[in-house]
Amino acid sequence: MKTLSENACFGGTQGVYSHASKATGCDMTFGLFMPSEAADGPVPVLWYLSGLTCTHENAMTKTGAQGWAAEQGIALVFPDTSPRGDGVADHDDFDMGQGAGFYVNATQAPWAPHFRMWDYVTDDLPQLLGAHFALDMSRQSITGHSMGGHGALTMAMGLPGRFRSVSAFSPIAHPTSSDWGRKQLGGYLGKDESAWAPHDATLLMQSRGFDGPVLIDQGADDQFLDLLQPEALAAAIAKRRQPATMRLQPGYDHSYFFVSTFMEEHVAFHADALYA
Amino acid sequence: MKTLSENACFGGTQGVYSHASKATGCDMTFGLFMPSEAADGPVPVLWYLSGLTCTHENAMTKTGAQGWAAEQGIALVFPDTSPRGDGVADHDDFDMGQGAGFYVNATQAPWAPHFRMWDYVTDDLPQLLGAHFALDMSRQSITGHSMGGHGALTMAMGLPGRFRSVSAFSPIAHPTSSDWGRKQLGGYLGKDESAWAPHDATLLMQSRGFDGPVLIDQGADDQFLDLLQPEALAAAIAKRRQPATMRLQPGYDHSYFFVSTFMEEHVAFHADALYA
Repeated sequence: MKTLSENACFGGTQGVYSHASKATGCDMTFGLFMPSEAADGPVPVLWYLSGLTCTHENAMTKTGAQGWAAEQGIALVFPDTSPRGDGVADHDDFDMGQGAGFYVNATQAPWAPHFRMWDYVTDDLPQLLGAHFALDMSRQSITGHSMGGHGALTMAMGLPGRFRSVSAFSPIAHPTSSDWGRKQLGGYLGKDESAWAPHDATLLMQSRGFDGPVLIDQGADDQFLDLLQPEALAAAIAKRRQPATMRLQPGYDHSYFFVSTFMEEHVAFHADALYA
Repeated sequence: MKTLSENACFGGTQGVYSHASKATGCDMTFGLFMPSEAADGPVPVLWYLSGLTCTHENAMTKTGAQGWAAEQGIALVFPDTSPRGDGVADHDDFDMGQGAGFYVNATQAPWAPHFRMWDYVTDDLPQLLGAHFALDMSRQSITGHSMGGHGALTMAMGLPGRFRSVSAFSPIAHPTSSDWGRKQLGGYLGKDESAWAPHDATLLMQSRGFDGPVLIDQGADDQFLDLLQPEALAAAIAKRRQPATMRLQPGYDHSYFFVSTFMEEHVAFHADALYA
């Protein structure tokens, strides 16, 4: 593991590190905020998964999450959104390939060798973090924005017992029935749609739900509302009677200005679960 | 004036606008955060001047200032740091020319035609803002980072009665004796150093001070400490017995992670003065 930068931030440290990933077969970069409390012992972890076109950096610099995490004594992990590099496959479109890994393990050419973001986020990176930092890996929660909200919800429901709480900002909520999903799941996982189901938050909510609290914020003026399909997830939550708070926020769009506005509440929501 | 974007943000609106500036003779872009209170009438204004290489955008996306301004019912203005465009002079170095206007009115070739950032920030842009937005221009305060901290301090002291309070994050505090200053003031204003004095916070503090509260935060681990020379300004503050709070923050560097860490306190400091 290589330290790329470390900056004092809200009494703690915002670091950026890179490492050779077994899962993705390439070097991966991630951001990690450690609150001051980590000096005295392991602290709980909140994962933040980012959206299309983002790297580890966007949320780390634009959401203001560190201030709230510092207040709660919680670490924040900001993984990248895909494998990257010259030897890694890519696509001309912004919503496929590098910067758009969709948090799945690709099985199809040309993606299969490197696009294993599910394993990277759920296995490879947690092992590295647990080994190198004062993190209590028995207390983890997860959130994310857009494609990252999709990743957060699918990982939380797909790995029962791993995360104590899950939240999402304007998640891609029903990718198997959206142009933000069918193209990518088809490309990464192949034409057999049964392989897509574990990567659709609405289908997972229908089939199994989540054993813990759920918080979802969605801007009512989001320019991508038709692609995100929050109404499908809302219906699945209602039908299952899943304990969840789902809020349509009037006036808000898909931007980081929206995410930063509600970040305080999301971090406090996760802190309640992590310290319960 | 042209609206480039408007995003809902902390109950208010983060806008980006462009306009043809008389002062700089080119199109200028600025950011403006209006809190929800502006719907009911004019709100006070806090100016944020940015540092070398920045545009209107950096502080607007990285400091988290809008959340605190929304809490206080204060508007935020984020001007650009120089004139820009194909017809505008530039320099190969990052600390001179476009992105590095140093908040002066240049008198020397090739800078004189456009590099009039003092007039732009103190005259041109305030007139535009007062005419187009629900802003109470009788209640203004000013802050900034690095080169922008220099601008905030020199404008606050250079225009008595204009600003109710001034603060700065790691300002260029004594440019007439620093490589961040001598080169630029010489280039923009010429060899006669008497023309530089109104653009040196330490010299202004020695000669006139500020009739209001002053807050300065400086990271003790700032990589540019030798160029910033906070000790010169501290000595001038002490000698004048200027009411001021000047803090060296252990561990912090020159980055936006430092600025965002102390932004809440700066906005609250200005709110005290603006609502006094």
